[in-house]
Amino acid sequence: MKKFINDPNDLTKELLLGMTKAYPSKVKLVEEKLVCRAVEKVESKVAIVSLGGTGHEPAVQGFVGEGMMDVCAAGDIWAAPGPPTLLSALKQVNRDAGILLVTLNHAGDVMSANMAKQMAEAEGIKVEEILTTEEVRPTEDEEGRGLGGCFFIYKICGAAAEQGKSLEEVSALAKKLNENMATIAVLSELATHPSTGGVCGELGENQMEICAGQHGEGGGVVMDMASSKETIKILADKLVEKLSLKSGDDIICIVNGSGKTTLMEQYIAFNDASEYFAGKGINIVGGHANEVLTVQEAGGYQLMVLKADAEIKALWEAPCDTPGYTVK
Amino acid sequence: MKKFINDPNDLTKELLLGMTKAYPSKVKLVEEKLVCRAVEKVESKVAIVSLGGTGHEPAVQGFVGEGMMDVCAAGDIWAAPGPPTLLSALKQVNRDAGILLVTLNHAGDVMSANMAKQMAEAEGIKVEEILTTEEVRPTEDEEGRGLGGCFFIYKICGAAAEQGKSLEEVSALAKKLNENMATIAVLSELATHPSTGGVCGELGENQMEICAGQHGEGGGVVMDMASSKETIKILADKLVEKLSLKSGDDIICIVNGSGKTTLMEQYIAFNDASEYFAGKGINIVGGHANEVLTVQEAGGYQLMVLKADAEIKALWEAPCDTPGYTVK
Repeated sequence: MKKFINDPNDLTKELLLGMTKAYPSKVKLVEEKLVCRAVEKVESKVAIVSLGGTGHEPAVQGFVGEGMMDVCAAGDIWAAPGPPTLLSALKQVNRDAGILLVTLNHAGDVMSANMAKQMAEAEGIKVEEILTTEEVRPTEDEEGRGLGGCFFIYKICGAAAEQGKSLEEVSALAKKLNENMATIAVLSELATHPSTGGVCGELGENQMEICAGQHGEGGGVVMDMASSKETIKILADKLVEKLSLKSGDDIICIVNGSGKTTLMEQYIAFNDASEYFAGKGINIVGGHANEVLTVQEAGGYQLMVLKADAEIKALWEAPCDTPGYTVK
Repeated sequence: MKKFINDPNDLTKELLLGMTKAYPSKVKLVEEKLVCRAVEKVESKVAIVSLGGTGHEPAVQGFVGEGMMDVCAAGDIWAAPGPPTLLSALKQVNRDAGILLVTLNHAGDVMSANMAKQMAEAEGIKVEEILTTEEVRPTEDEEGRGLGGCFFIYKICGAAAEQGKSLEEVSALAKKLNENMATIAVLSELATHPSTGGVCGELGENQMEICAGQHGEGGGVVMDMASSKETIKILADKLVEKLSLKSGDDIICIVNGSGKTTLMEQYIAFNDASEYFAGKGINIVGGHANEVLTVQEAGGYQLMVLKADAEIKALWEAPCDTPGYTVK
């Protein structure tokens, strides 16, 4: 492990300080692990709150800011924040308009979210939760985890909230997004935990894992490395199947690099995905190729697709201003 | 070399296709290796043109778009484009208002730029050139190369051009920026050339190289890995010295990840840089921590500083909209 860090116990604290100092017009820290918008959204509008471990930069804390998330509770590296931190986040934006809580389907996050939500509701805070489960798993009977698709929720529900939509509307939109999105991960190199030096799983010299999840938890399908075009076909076939995509459908497509995989490769993958979907008569109406949710220096990427109607497309294109994503 | 690519000879072509397909509202390809703004700038305003090898994504082609560059000539991986491609770029935006040509000081780029500029001028095209030389070298008698500092030129001269400043003014501003900026690179892992599989140079298990340049050409100072804080002190001391920074000065500071180094580490480095400069009474009035100019999966980063006055600060904050950088 060859990293530019200081005390391995201070990673989360220091990275959040660094992010908020780099973009003080967008975000601020209100507690050591609570990232808020620099300029708070008016109370008459629904707030968007989320939670997640750090070490996945820019996700998830990097999507706090105008037009996306209002406040995010950060956990340690790859670890959920505890319920008290999330409760603080919910209190921070308590309002009559209500709060949409976005939880990625990972055991720790789910547990913290459930407890914090109960405590918040006991205090009269109005919270609706969306659990993101958009991951494509190797077999249909396994429950999908929440991968990079949370980005679609932050962006699109964030824009809807900004436009003054009610909690009922924003929450219904979040459910619609979760049903219409799918993410599949390919892993070619494993990440090292930056505090402990531990590596999750193993992969052979010339191997990649499909449906690999986020950290390399295992359970995916290991096969020989393939060309970009072949890899995209393997991944996209599964997305098309999961979302029953057909000719004439509009999608938003994201290639989300996991860390080591270069932006060059992400652009090449996007080109291959464009050709793949064009071949099926499916239209990409919005795109992005960059690191959205990383896992340290893991190799690989997540291919993310959201089936888009006119409402979703308009909200996707609406302005936002966060450390990790900006739309002018 | 474990990469998601297709034919190694098609990397540049495919990555440019992918980038322009991901962001069709920002950029388009007019020739295989010419990236242009999707919506051209009006002819009454100065155009900004640059050139550079690919394999450094998002640089340099990713900074084409509203408020930054108008057209960029791309070379193969880590290779300058030939004079004909750059001449095409200059012809593409030929206008009475004139063109600012931004050339990074690397032998191949300089040669192509000189020849293309001569040919363009022979055809009556009005071009002023800025050669970026902001790199801090190990000893003062070595000429600085052009590293990530080109980003400052694209952003700030791009904003000035957008505001209708004349070629004389934009060109004078570019000179002022080059004199007031400095970049220093630290390298911890070497990159692999994605077409040939070749690695430039070597570094020991626990070593890093200061003043390493872009690709690991060698010539820097090799030392043991240090903490983030210690590394920042080594780097920032040299920037302060080069720019004669003193208490009360305002700077824009960028931590520009080289590829493998995580955004987590870049944020931590930004935090350490903030503390370092605060300790000297130097104010960071603008910041960014992300990959600006990468070298495949090289480890390390470039620390970039620009001494800023009110004019520079205002232009830095002006809107822009490119695949690699957006200001709302």
